[in-house]
Amino acid sequence: MKPMPISIDTLKEKGRRLRIDSLKATTEAGSGHPSSCLSAADLMSVVFFNEMRFDPKDPSNPANDRFILSKGHAAPLLWSAYAEAGIISEKDLLTLRRLDSNLEGHPTPRMPWVDVASGSLGQGLSAGLGNALAARLDNIPYNTYVLLGDGECAEGSVWEAAALASYYKASNLYAIIDVNGLGQSQRTMDSFDVNRFAGKFRAFGWFAVTVDGHSYADILEAFDKCRREGGTQPRALVAKTFKGKGVSMLENLEGWHGKAIPKPDLPKALAELEQPLGPNEFNPNPRTGFSKQQVEATIDILVARQPGESVATREAYGDALVKVADKDRRIVALDGDTKNSTFSEKLLKAHPDRFFEMFIAEQNMVGVAMGLAARGKIPFVSTFAAFLTRAYDQIRMAGVSQSNVKFCGSHAGVSIGEDGPSQMGLEDMAMFRPIPGSVVLYPSDAVSAERLVLEAARRRGICYIRTSRPKTSVLYANDEQFPIGGSKVPKKSANDRVTVVAAGITLHEALKAASKLEAEGMPIRVIDAYSVKPIDTRTILAAAQETGGRVLVVEDHYEEGGLGDAVLEAVGNQASVVKLAVREIPRSGPPEALIEKYGISSGHIVAAVKKF
Amino acid sequence: MKPMPISIDTLKEKGRRLRIDSLKATTEAGSGHPSSCLSAADLMSVVFFNEMRFDPKDPSNPANDRFILSKGHAAPLLWSAYAEAGIISEKDLLTLRRLDSNLEGHPTPRMPWVDVASGSLGQGLSAGLGNALAARLDNIPYNTYVLLGDGECAEGSVWEAAALASYYKASNLYAIIDVNGLGQSQRTMDSFDVNRFAGKFRAFGWFAVTVDGHSYADILEAFDKCRREGGTQPRALVAKTFKGKGVSMLENLEGWHGKAIPKPDLPKALAELEQPLGPNEFNPNPRTGFSKQQVEATIDILVARQPGESVATREAYGDALVKVADKDRRIVALDGDTKNSTFSEKLLKAHPDRFFEMFIAEQNMVGVAMGLAARGKIPFVSTFAAFLTRAYDQIRMAGVSQSNVKFCGSHAGVSIGEDGPSQMGLEDMAMFRPIPGSVVLYPSDAVSAERLVLEAARRRGICYIRTSRPKTSVLYANDEQFPIGGSKVPKKSANDRVTVVAAGITLHEALKAASKLEAEGMPIRVIDAYSVKPIDTRTILAAAQETGGRVLVVEDHYEEGGLGDAVLEAVGNQASVVKLAVREIPRSGPPEALIEKYGISSGHIVAAVKKF
Repeated sequence: MKPMPISIDTLKEKGRRLRIDSLKATTEAGSGHPSSCLSAADLMSVVFFNEMRFDPKDPSNPANDRFILSKGHAAPLLWSAYAEAGIISEKDLLTLRRLDSNLEGHPTPRMPWVDVASGSLGQGLSAGLGNALAARLDNIPYNTYVLLGDGECAEGSVWEAAALASYYKASNLYAIIDVNGLGQSQRTMDSFDVNRFAGKFRAFGWFAVTVDGHSYADILEAFDKCRREGGTQPRALVAKTFKGKGVSMLENLEGWHGKAIPKPDLPKALAELEQPLGPNEFNPNPRTGFSKQQVEATIDILVARQPGESVATREAYGDALVKVADKDRRIVALDGDTKNSTFSEKLLKAHPDRFFEMFIAEQNMVGVAMGLAARGKIPFVSTFAAFLTRAYDQIRMAGVSQSNVKFCGSHAGVSIGEDGPSQMGLEDMAMFRPIPGSVVLYPSDAVSAERLVLEAARRRGICYIRTSRPKTSVLYANDEQFPIGGSKVPKKSANDRVTVVAAGITLHEALKAASKLEAEGMPIRVIDAYSVKPIDTRTILAAAQETGGRVLVVEDHYEEGGLGDAVLEAVGNQASVVKLAVREIPRSGPPEALIEKYGISSGHIVAAVKKF
Repeated sequence: MKPMPISIDTLKEKGRRLRIDSLKATTEAGSGHPSSCLSAADLMSVVFFNEMRFDPKDPSNPANDRFILSKGHAAPLLWSAYAEAGIISEKDLLTLRRLDSNLEGHPTPRMPWVDVASGSLGQGLSAGLGNALAARLDNIPYNTYVLLGDGECAEGSVWEAAALASYYKASNLYAIIDVNGLGQSQRTMDSFDVNRFAGKFRAFGWFAVTVDGHSYADILEAFDKCRREGGTQPRALVAKTFKGKGVSMLENLEGWHGKAIPKPDLPKALAELEQPLGPNEFNPNPRTGFSKQQVEATIDILVARQPGESVATREAYGDALVKVADKDRRIVALDGDTKNSTFSEKLLKAHPDRFFEMFIAEQNMVGVAMGLAARGKIPFVSTFAAFLTRAYDQIRMAGVSQSNVKFCGSHAGVSIGEDGPSQMGLEDMAMFRPIPGSVVLYPSDAVSAERLVLEAARRRGICYIRTSRPKTSVLYANDEQFPIGGSKVPKKSANDRVTVVAAGITLHEALKAASKLEAEGMPIRVIDAYSVKPIDTRTILAAAQETGGRVLVVEDHYEEGGLGDAVLEAVGNQASVVKLAVREIPRSGPPEALIEKYGISSGHIVAAVKKF
């Protein structure tokens, strides 16, 4: 184990220095949350300098214990811990919140030691669980420590993570709750009631210990107790603390949240912390001998659909998921109790160890995926497209984290039929398109669905795959390629009058419309915009020019933010664009009836083309 | 109290009939979730026909007890209860899931008795808490009963609602948990462990009783116990049940979720339920004498800003909130522990009884607002724009519910500065615009902010108000009007070369750019698109035509889904549109530096205009 135990005096000294560092950095920056740093400084000292095993010189050591600052506004405390561990210099701390610095106001993975961005509260425990599950998959004995504020425990996502961590017996996961009793604008809901917090964690299946968060003996004993008695349970230290602890002008006072000490007052505050409390030492004790994850060379799959076969894109998603997972061990899947609808259950059957049932808790599911991705996995997250909205904040933060997470939203649009509007994903593309660097893919047949799963697996970054509930006929040859940013032109003649851009279900409506119109001597161009973002501007523009500047976009999505807007952006003023999209809250009814009623059927396409 | 107690035999008979109704309706529809109806039929019978007091002839009786089916997929059971209560006819039940029927696959308020749409799981308890708080505000002694599935209790939003209901001592709120142990794709996380469920509710401050959900004596006694011993706590009945109870081909079997019994098998299933169990009676016992909420005539406010004054739109939001609330008693406010940043705290100070601190739990906050709106309140929900993403599913469902909820997202865009990307709302407009019927407002000064709060209060439906962190100078006269769908043209001359469309922070950058360009003899038109949805197409098109078809849009938002897309849609091919928007994940830094770095400053506007 450890070369020699670190003394309490040394830990106290580290705590003192973390406080000083945090105050200096925030005062220099002129903003930040020093009081939220001070409440957790003693907990942080014990976690970083006694509990955790890591190599400060090698952030990529696969056996480093992981630390996630869920209460991201205490970022200066994290940067200070890095400084005290020798990861960054003390001078770096004074660049806090500067445009040229990676020491941002809230942690982001621009700092290599940070696994996931935090600052949107209540998300860290899910990412920590992702780390913990990755550790188990890779059979590496590292632990993950997540520091949470008490205020953020009001977020339901914390309890989603708590339930799942217990379900998965994540005994390699520690939650440290900094119960300082003060929120941003008033006392927290449960104030200093650490027993109530501990009771909640216990009810959710955790081993929970309450401690005085400013007593080093207490904190050390609590960690020991977790090791002795925690068994297979995830472990929580619920610590009573004071916001601003150690500096009388801040300590346990309201009105100081998110405020730096003004420069003139800093010396007085520091004076209260000037006395060294012990030796300033840190002898890291990293685990060695664990090999880094092997990164696959580019993978490929074989697609073997029959011409004329009718297969839902959601089912092809499941088939392809197994194929890419066969080739790349990093690929894992998560689902929110919809695996028999999204067909991710195919991966469960093929590789049970690499499938995680996340139950009906989408926020945690996405958070866990971020943690898995941070540890080198390629997670595919699936549920109904509608229910991914439940995790938009996590998806947004996956964007900030530049996470390598793949999303599949099934049952997109009114074409799901009778289940009604609550189950119809109609704003999913609008949700994913704004994320910088995101890719939005929308297959219309089994071949393109399989190919796009492959493309998503190969691409680093956030990819969203939109699948449909109904079966659709196979349109493409098995060896057809579907590069991201491309498109297909399944219908084309020299005399096309209008370009119809469609994807997914509406592509089939467009092809039906094309046949009808052709019979009437009015040929149209049909573009399969399977890559909604990035959109194939070149092909669409060229088609628009060849069809008299007439473009019709038809999509099973609300009119704002989806394919129509992507096409508008692509063609600009170089064509006249008409959009067919869903424009009101749909009702329950048969798929065909809904496609008709909400104006995106082949009949509506025919009418719109004629109107042009 | 009751005219005479209803007998257990009568309740059993109602339960039997609810089962038969649910089976017939789903088999006729050919889809639906009969097994999920059958597990809850006995609970439903007691709730509807013994516990609740309501007037089946008057859905608008303000003292009716409320029922929310959080497990919305059991909609046929709800419709069956309506039929058994005489609200609809038994014949209506056979229209289930038809396009021309209000008996949708999941409940929506198209059926007058439904307060909020359900079907996205885990949201009902929040709406129930909203009802419960409304009851207290209006001093009417009705109760709200929420029926939840066990699977949906994995959703964190349930625990957000649980914590807040306890905090607000909502003893007029009952949660009934139908623990049938089976999810969609497998056993639930906690299976039949009703004690674990009850333990969770108790840890969250509830009075919880476990029952056999198929024993009428048990259920009745549990409700009595809640009344006797529940005190000021919200109450939970945790009921062990069997999915498909009463029909042997379904009972407690996997593989039946979301499947109707095929027509040929229906007689066999019904045969098991054919024996009447008691008299079929229901004598409603509504509360009388409670007056309906008075609806205000159109309200108005007085705006009194000083020319040259500098005020953040978020602060003006708070000022106006008090003014509209002074005039209309229906107006209430909710905030997620950011009230000193969003300035909703002004309402807390002015009308403490009409402000609800919802702590850091945005999903529940929005759900509670939906419940309050369903009971005639006009809730204004505020937090950072970024954190409204946390509640996108609830916002989406507020859309499906056609709720009268107002949202204010503060701290929009990179202009917040050093706190960094996690705190910057950059996809908020993209999120709100797709919701059918939604209004998106974006004031740029204190006068427009106040006026737009008034417009939002007057308008029925979902309105989103986007406010900014920095102070901005007052641009408009106090009596200027800002109708929804309008715009302003603060800079205009006959020789304008380009139309710049901006809003919020970027309007001030556009005006700065206009001054610089005017000095260089290059006048531009500036449009304040304060109504992003609906957008003022007429004014923008006219300006585009008058400025040579050159339109520049500049916004503190990601490039997809915001003002730029709204303008693209408005002008179509009648102008050339260039967008300036945020195109990457921003960093921490000073507001001005970020506006510059991410390409939306006056300098970038000048350059883009020149490039045109």
